[in-house]
Amino acid sequence: MSLAHGRPMVAIPGPSIMPDRVMAAMARPMPNIYDGPLVDMSHSILADLPKVARTESPVFITVSNGHGAWEMAISNTLCRGDKVLVLESGRFAVNWGDLAAVSGVKFEVLAGTERGPVDPAAVEVRLREDIDHEFKAVLVVQTDTATSVTNDIAAVRRALDAAKHPALYMVDCIASLGCERFEMDEWGVDVMVAASQKGLMVPPGLGFVWRNDKAAKAHETADLRTGYWDWSLRRQDEAHYVIYSGTPPISLLFALREALDMLFEEGLDNVWARHGVLAGAVHAAVEAWSIRGGLELNITGAMARSAAVSTILTHEIDPDRLRRVCETEAGLTLGLGIGSFDGRAFRIGHMGHLNPPMLLGTLGTVEAALAAIGAPVGGSGVAAAAAHIGAAL
Amino acid sequence: MSLAHGRPMVAIPGPSIMPDRVMAAMARPMPNIYDGPLVDMSHSILADLPKVARTESPVFITVSNGHGAWEMAISNTLCRGDKVLVLESGRFAVNWGDLAAVSGVKFEVLAGTERGPVDPAAVEVRLREDIDHEFKAVLVVQTDTATSVTNDIAAVRRALDAAKHPALYMVDCIASLGCERFEMDEWGVDVMVAASQKGLMVPPGLGFVWRNDKAAKAHETADLRTGYWDWSLRRQDEAHYVIYSGTPPISLLFALREALDMLFEEGLDNVWARHGVLAGAVHAAVEAWSIRGGLELNITGAMARSAAVSTILTHEIDPDRLRRVCETEAGLTLGLGIGSFDGRAFRIGHMGHLNPPMLLGTLGTVEAALAAIGAPVGGSGVAAAAAHIGAAL
Amino acid sequence: MSLAHGRPMVAIPGPSIMPDRVMAAMARPMPNIYDGPLVDMSHSILADLPKVARTESPVFITVSNGHGAWEMAISNTLCRGDKVLVLESGRFAVNWGDLAAVSGVKFEVLAGTERGPVDPAAVEVRLREDIDHEFKAVLVVQTDTATSVTNDIAAVRRALDAAKHPALYMVDCIASLGCERFEMDEWGVDVMVAASQKGLMVPPGLGFVWRNDKAAKAHETADLRTGYWDWSLRRQDEAHYVIYSGTPPISLLFALREALDMLFEEGLDNVWARHGVLAGAVHAAVEAWSIRGGLELNITGAMARSAAVSTILTHEIDPDRLRRVCETEAGLTLGLGIGSFDGRAFRIGHMGHLNPPMLLGTLGTVEAALAAIGAPVGGSGVAAAAAHIGAAL
Amino acid sequence: MSLAHGRPMVAIPGPSIMPDRVMAAMARPMPNIYDGPLVDMSHSILADLPKVARTESPVFITVSNGHGAWEMAISNTLCRGDKVLVLESGRFAVNWGDLAAVSGVKFEVLAGTERGPVDPAAVEVRLREDIDHEFKAVLVVQTDTATSVTNDIAAVRRALDAAKHPALYMVDCIASLGCERFEMDEWGVDVMVAASQKGLMVPPGLGFVWRNDKAAKAHETADLRTGYWDWSLRRQDEAHYVIYSGTPPISLLFALREALDMLFEEGLDNVWARHGVLAGAVHAAVEAWSIRGGLELNITGAMARSAAVSTILTHEIDPDRLRRVCETEAGLTLGLGIGSFDGRAFRIGHMGHLNPPMLLGTLGTVEAALAAIGAPVGGSGVAAAAAHIGAAL
Repeated sequence: MSLAHGRPMVAIPGPSIMPDRVMAAMARPMPNIYDGPLVDMSHSILADLPKVARTESPVFITVSNGHGAWEMAISNTLCRGDKVLVLESGRFAVNWGDLAAVSGVKFEVLAGTERGPVDPAAVEVRLREDIDHEFKAVLVVQTDTATSVTNDIAAVRRALDAAKHPALYMVDCIASLGCERFEMDEWGVDVMVAASQKGLMVPPGLGFVWRNDKAAKAHETADLRTGYWDWSLRRQDEAHYVIYSGTPPISLLFALREALDMLFEEGLDNVWARHGVLAGAVHAAVEAWSIRGGLELNITGAMARSAAVSTILTHEIDPDRLRRVCETEAGLTLGLGIGSFDGRAFRIGHMGHLNPPMLLGTLGTVEAALAAIGAPVGGSGVAAAAAHIGAAL
Repeated sequence: MSLAHGRPMVAIPGPSIMPDRVMAAMARPMPNIYDGPLVDMSHSILADLPKVARTESPVFITVSNGHGAWEMAISNTLCRGDKVLVLESGRFAVNWGDLAAVSGVKFEVLAGTERGPVDPAAVEVRLREDIDHEFKAVLVVQTDTATSVTNDIAAVRRALDAAKHPALYMVDCIASLGCERFEMDEWGVDVMVAASQKGLMVPPGLGFVWRNDKAAKAHETADLRTGYWDWSLRRQDEAHYVIYSGTPPISLLFALREALDMLFEEGLDNVWARHGVLAGAVHAAVEAWSIRGGLELNITGAMARSAAVSTILTHEIDPDRLRRVCETEAGLTLGLGIGSFDGRAFRIGHMGHLNPPMLLGTLGTVEAALAAIGAPVGGSGVAAAAAHIGAAL
Repeated sequence: MSLAHGRPMVAIPGPSIMPDRVMAAMARPMPNIYDGPLVDMSHSILADLPKVARTESPVFITVSNGHGAWEMAISNTLCRGDKVLVLESGRFAVNWGDLAAVSGVKFEVLAGTERGPVDPAAVEVRLREDIDHEFKAVLVVQTDTATSVTNDIAAVRRALDAAKHPALYMVDCIASLGCERFEMDEWGVDVMVAASQKGLMVPPGLGFVWRNDKAAKAHETADLRTGYWDWSLRRQDEAHYVIYSGTPPISLLFALREALDMLFEEGLDNVWARHGVLAGAVHAAVEAWSIRGGLELNITGAMARSAAVSTILTHEIDPDRLRRVCETEAGLTLGLGIGSFDGRAFRIGHMGHLNPPMLLGTLGTVEAALAAIGAPVGGSGVAAAAAHIGAAL
Repeated sequence: MSLAHGRPMVAIPGPSIMPDRVMAAMARPMPNIYDGPLVDMSHSILADLPKVARTESPVFITVSNGHGAWEMAISNTLCRGDKVLVLESGRFAVNWGDLAAVSGVKFEVLAGTERGPVDPAAVEVRLREDIDHEFKAVLVVQTDTATSVTNDIAAVRRALDAAKHPALYMVDCIASLGCERFEMDEWGVDVMVAASQKGLMVPPGLGFVWRNDKAAKAHETADLRTGYWDWSLRRQDEAHYVIYSGTPPISLLFALREALDMLFEEGLDNVWARHGVLAGAVHAAVEAWSIRGGLELNITGAMARSAAVSTILTHEIDPDRLRRVCETEAGLTLGLGIGSFDGRAFRIGHMGHLNPPMLLGTLGTVEAALAAIGAPVGGSGVAAAAAHIGAAL
């Protein structure tokens, strides 16, 4: 029977669940766009976003999704024919390379595994081989939402440094920003890319690119620049609309201002700590369920598991059936495995606006659905998760 | 540490959590109130509300809360000095009597217990003693939100019939309507009172009184009638505003129309069945927790437990501390024990717009908080609840 | 052809157009109702409402519409069989008397005219005749929305004083509060009644009664008291819900808090001045239109015209046709004449959240519709209104 | 004094005023993005958008503003070094050329005047001179929001045909779509670009590009293609997200679906007719005001005036002062003159969700403000506008 008639719980790896405050902010009527409160708010956002990335460097807001932010990063720093090194750890760094390739960028993939992070030692080896410094940039994701790995961004930086390689270090934090610790300046990241709809708790439609002086220098000679993405044209001391290369995304900016307020009210360190505990609860749940072998966390090393998303291998269990029962009978939408995980995994997003009732409700419902389909699970995952959270309260 | 920064879960015994659809409906601008769509909608609501109570009798909508609906029921059917029999099963039937007493109605309480329902046999005995039919009405609640009992409304009717007593049978379903099965006509209820903010999923501010022909007959001689509550003045064939004795409660009517649509889309029998399963999950959870004696369901008989609310005795555990941890650390608001339960119980509301993620999130969070405060609980309640739900999916 | 496809303008005499801020506030989820922010907000509202009435006396918030507030005023101060004097100046004071009569209050109407205010001299004469002080209260409206008159509340007080009559002085400001100057303490008003949906800019569903010490004294012996309305039971130092005689009207309280903030931000004197100018613009428009005799303001004396609503006599013009063209072709909803004005007047509400674009849009559309139906109007009303406003900017 | 405390009227040339229905739709929670209702809705939008452009050709939705849509059009059809002819009629066609130039496109401007439309004869002459067909595309706007001109798109097509020139004909309808008649197929337009925030009544953040088979052919050899904009990659028969090159702009799609429903409910021909009447009212107002020379419509030829925006020259009147009085004293935000019109014009947007109360309120308020600043205006503009509308009702 269907018990789904309540508030839907959507636990996919983005968009995350939006706070009521954010949705209310988005509902404001269109204001004057030439001057006044909107323009002031816009500048306050540009001043606050670097804090979220722990950087002194400026940010550019793109009216686009995350793929658009990828393109802004590429087109502002590279030339046609440039070569980049893509550090594989799932799907999305390679997708970024694919996107760049349409503009004429060549890329080499440093092969990774599906169940663990990028190996910094392998990065160092490959970069040392690149004696002529053909690689103009190294592309990596902090979190890959397909595998649910989190890479050690500081360690990869050390690999570049050890290899004395001048490539730009570009990191995609689309899935991790606002969930996982990220220190742009301390970790030596040159370009960082994010989007609105995950840890930043704003509906999709905004991208973000932070870039340091080294990237600004590369920009000067980049020949992939286009009118829409070009950093030089987006001067903050000119007419307000040039910041957005056209009409500002008003409703989403209202939402973003509110979401940033919420992040700062909680405190970024607290936000990260909260996601750490909640992710730990997911891990505890899957480990309890895995006793009889039915389920397994995809990422084997505990340190490399994402604070924002968990990919769970289902072995003999049909993930589509599990997901269907959750959604139609119980009101819970899970993510499915994508790419090579199709048909053999499901995913739980645990990013953004998330607390114990939401997460334990998700895990409890998965447990109920596992029981309903007769899945061979072991102990109670939700009990383990509740215990994990109880220990942290 | 606080993990509360997500969507707050409010699990109090009303107001319940409002559906997004209902809140969106409420946000519409003020319309023309003299004719047109608002008036049509108003009549559609008056036509649909009797279906929710399973009756052919008409309903009156009060611009008030549930106490106002109580007063409408009393003032339209009784005279100053009339005597009524109040069937105690907690707090609220007596409160209803108290309210009536201010208008000059006398009431006798048929004492009940705190941990079980009204005893129909005792009702029959008392009514048989009332040879002169001094009792003009019998007042009872279907569900008492203090004790979380649910009374057997049909059985009490049989008691009146067995005693051949002509008293009006008045039932308060404020906490139960839309959660618990209720059959006004089949069960021989003369007057039924409800309100918007629980199973009907509409913010507080609307009361409802259904009355059958017998009650309409009593109305003719009632001398407690007042201009605001008087049934005779609220004719549906006159100006629209007389239905509401003044300006209609527009926003709440928009909300109610949407909520009724949701109830009918799901089907009333399905709504009741869903609440039955979810209440069963709460019972399973408390039973699992009770193994070491820490917690106990207040209502001892399984058949008399409410589908809408559960009062849980805490024995050695401090319910205020439990509640505080849930609210400040985890984002869950529990109800506290009221009246004689103050300081020795907490309450979980499980009424209205509720599905497994919401309920299991609530139970999982209670379990985490119990662990956090070192409460002597036994097995995992949330695991038991998930298993209960899993068996029903 | 229909040009109506824009933001509907509803210019009826209440409910008024709600501010976006108010509607957004109303959309918040249900909170904990036992303690915390809701309770704090509730007390802040009780503290602020007297400022709106310019009184040191307390206020009671009813979960009801304005008629419920009427009933609270009556039932808390009078006894069955008491006699009151109703000062006719249209429709609503008499309606108040009719409502009181259902509870057993007797009333005498001091007849008034349809086109002007209550005559204080006549009040004094009638009260002097009441040597035995049979009248326990005098009932009057500040503004009658049928005639659009505004009575001189201070002058009527002086009439009571001159007659040395001890009757309670009860004033209905439902249509005028927040539009028209009102000074409860300075003017010696004993009981004042209002509602949420007009000048207070909150959707209908809340009533308000302010009462001074004299009314509190009368309350002690009143025998019409009922459980729902009784002032004595609504103690602010007890459980929060007793303030509202049951569940508080949460969403509407959220809205009211926001609306009060808006009133105080603007400043009450500025609010009244704004309504004065805007009402003057309506008067200027009708006077311009009236040149050829087509239209006429109902209230002949300029000082007695309401700042909140204008009733406009239509003579040879069919007001239903005018209204239909405005609504279906142009997106403007006008009020119609009610009672004796049915078929010979229309009404423009100009209360609450109103500025020049809204009012001039209303007047301009009426002018366009008058032209469309070939009405014999004189000069341009909207031009006169714009000039009137221009002189005030 | 300030009379501004009502619903703000924002009459700038975009974003336009959003319908309540659209804003409510945008407030829905994030759904499953992989399949189900969102995906169905997405395909319904793709099926319906061509109807708005009167074409059988497909549309691409960009997560961007209008400038992003410009870039999609350019990058999918041209090569580095290609030359295009830009038909000047104000500011925006040249801006489009400037944007293209960043990607390496060369452009020549066919000079136009500030006070009238593109001259099709001059286009024909210039294209005839281009014997080698160096121009790969001709760029023009239907409406320029700086000058408020509307170009004759069909006539320019005839000029291309007469010159037997194979250039792609690309039209920017950002400001005009949904206001002004546009017939993509009948008029032989190859690529059309629009955005969400004007006549389509959706907050900014969506761009649209329609392209016919000829443009699709050009796409095959275009070398400016990038991963984000590339048409070939956005296949509708693949995973839903590729349609949007990444995460779909969920909230704005909800809004767009509602806005399209509104357009179709009214009927596109009726929408255009409504804007024609309302624009005519603006023209009538300015002509009345211009009697004493104070104000003047920028576009001299009546046929070339936009149905969506009017630029009004202010001569001796200070437009900044006029605008400031309107905004701070009366709650009306006007557009200012931009570019060469800075300091000598203001603009009224009359696009999208607009009816007589809104427009007459705008014009009446301008008239009041003109009076307040002592501007030398002639007759009553708002009276003339009301008469114009009255004749059309």
